[in-house]
Amino acid sequence: MKKVGILGGGQLGRMLLQAGANYPVITYVLEKDENCPAAHLCHHFIKGDITDYEAVYQFGKHCDIITIEIENVNIDALAKLEAEGKTIIPNIATLKTIGNKILQKEFYKVNEIPTADFVVTDSKIQLNNNPSFFPAVHKLASGGYDGRGVQVIRSSKDIESGFDEPAVLEKMVNIKQEISIIIAKSSTGETAIYPPVEMVFDQQLNQLSHQITPAKLEEKILWKAEAIALMVIKHLNSPGIFAVELFADTDGNVLVNETAPRVHNSGHHTIEACYSSQFDMVWRILLGYPLGNADLILPAALVNIVGAIGCDGEPVYNGLNEVLAMDNVFVHIYGKQHTKPGRKMGHVTILSAEKQELIHKANQIKNLISVKS
Amino acid sequence: MKKVGILGGGQLGRMLLQAGANYPVITYVLEKDENCPAAHLCHHFIKGDITDYEAVYQFGKHCDIITIEIENVNIDALAKLEAEGKTIIPNIATLKTIGNKILQKEFYKVNEIPTADFVVTDSKIQLNNNPSFFPAVHKLASGGYDGRGVQVIRSSKDIESGFDEPAVLEKMVNIKQEISIIIAKSSTGETAIYPPVEMVFDQQLNQLSHQITPAKLEEKILWKAEAIALMVIKHLNSPGIFAVELFADTDGNVLVNETAPRVHNSGHHTIEACYSSQFDMVWRILLGYPLGNADLILPAALVNIVGAIGCDGEPVYNGLNEVLAMDNVFVHIYGKQHTKPGRKMGHVTILSAEKQELIHKANQIKNLISVKS
Repeated sequence: MKKVGILGGGQLGRMLLQAGANYPVITYVLEKDENCPAAHLCHHFIKGDITDYEAVYQFGKHCDIITIEIENVNIDALAKLEAEGKTIIPNIATLKTIGNKILQKEFYKVNEIPTADFVVTDSKIQLNNNPSFFPAVHKLASGGYDGRGVQVIRSSKDIESGFDEPAVLEKMVNIKQEISIIIAKSSTGETAIYPPVEMVFDQQLNQLSHQITPAKLEEKILWKAEAIALMVIKHLNSPGIFAVELFADTDGNVLVNETAPRVHNSGHHTIEACYSSQFDMVWRILLGYPLGNADLILPAALVNIVGAIGCDGEPVYNGLNEVLAMDNVFVHIYGKQHTKPGRKMGHVTILSAEKQELIHKANQIKNLISVKS
Repeated sequence: MKKVGILGGGQLGRMLLQAGANYPVITYVLEKDENCPAAHLCHHFIKGDITDYEAVYQFGKHCDIITIEIENVNIDALAKLEAEGKTIIPNIATLKTIGNKILQKEFYKVNEIPTADFVVTDSKIQLNNNPSFFPAVHKLASGGYDGRGVQVIRSSKDIESGFDEPAVLEKMVNIKQEISIIIAKSSTGETAIYPPVEMVFDQQLNQLSHQITPAKLEEKILWKAEAIALMVIKHLNSPGIFAVELFADTDGNVLVNETAPRVHNSGHHTIEACYSSQFDMVWRILLGYPLGNADLILPAALVNIVGAIGCDGEPVYNGLNEVLAMDNVFVHIYGKQHTKPGRKMGHVTILSAEKQELIHKANQIKNLISVKS
């Protein structure tokens, strides 16, 4: 049996391992927290830092194939492992390109993939040179994750909150819709594209309300979005699963926001909603099987379960009984030992042929579930 | 978080744990083989014999709730644990009744649940007293599993192959259809019934070909089967999940063959075919959540992957690539380290609205997949 190592042991690793138990494979996880969501679902858990060269290298020596569930890993160690004959999915070049916001933006530019205009900066003082970009978003080249390393620069007054490290300054997009498209690519170059997902925002709270699929898009926006997502994957030229996050702007343009070279929050509904989930697809890619069917069985919505504001400690889940009493609703709790405000603690998927039912249930679920401490 | 212990670490435990990772729960498995299919998917694996009093008792002391994935466990230890405040699901009385074929048959008789006529025997010589029962089936009261402990007695000539231990002699049924109905019962008495499954036999090879759901039954047979299955569960009076295996005979009668107080091979399709799978349902029952929706999303067929005749050793799976290239087909390999002729090594579920497609793909898959050594 093939030995597959996963760098990172969060919820993405957890759901990968749930799906992996369908296949003949020996699984390894590297993660510094031995109580992480994925630790108890693999054959071999190794405690270690995924950003540390030696930890990743020694871990990878046990494995035939190494993949990631988070981008922030030691790429040099993976390159060394690849040179020694290990298979790394996604490939090293892709991890380097995507792991650095400057390289990622330049990749889009070089390959003529539509993305928001940007300049590269090394210090906040350089923002003064680009007033035409405001309002803009300043993004750290590396180390940012889940909202960290991103600053909105509305005008010259905000320059002080910019970064004094390598970063990109991006023109802010007049966003009409936020879309995610997940694409799988096999080692033989076969691709499978999942139906687009729309991020629906709560205008009052100014935060993600829920995700819905298939996204309701004008036909030409759908075509552009799919064409652009496929172009990203073509030029990355790597096997793996990819989430291409896109903006449709108020002028009818479609722009790439960013790409993740791994399973993604915007694809969690695929566990129940699609014939082959994003997690199932990864195992097919890693083990060299044909890709699965990315079609929807039923339309779906997804609500993230996040830690409540003001709560920091051992999680207590409220409302699970009420949500589990609803038909065609699927709860996934990630088993994290500690909740923090806004931390992703689980998600709920809803299936229904009726869009109104999806939205109605998504709103009910948001009101019913909370994670306190 | 609740601590749930599972006695047994085979494929049923494996699939239970895959589903359990959706819920906030700490999992324990007791099994003597540390390389069993479930060993690496729980928080705490304890090596030990599930039929041994001390092993089960010491294991259960770690847990809040204890369940089984195989009936052949030490019930005395579970009774002691229950007396000390642990929750045992299914309950002790049910495990005792079902764990002994004599008690199980008497349970059906006392509760006026239709089942094949039978007499209790202690030795093969007693079979001479019951020639009117022939052709009959002689079944050991305890210790039988997966076809072991069962002898067909067609006539007096076969008496020599009978058992010299407590057993039941059952009149052979003129079987028209074999049906399985899975029912979930919560601790509060709520029940959910899955659509009936039909076992389709290969007449030439005289073995199970595939399972298909919903079973194609005459309306009155369906009603009888559901009523009988519900009667079994009512009288067992225990929370848990139950597979009631039934015969429809050539005279239009429906008879209980046997009941399993656990997840069952005939319910594996529910992972993909139903909103709430039999495995999901178990966690809802164990953790005190409402039952899920047992309805079918799509009709399904299921093919077991069994070890090839003449092969005994490390398994090699042939045909996986071809089967995984088929749309809407779900492969589950159990990760057993050793294949033997007829051993259950995995299964494949097929979803389709078209019954002909289900049957066609089931036949294709049987021809494509083999497990050799």
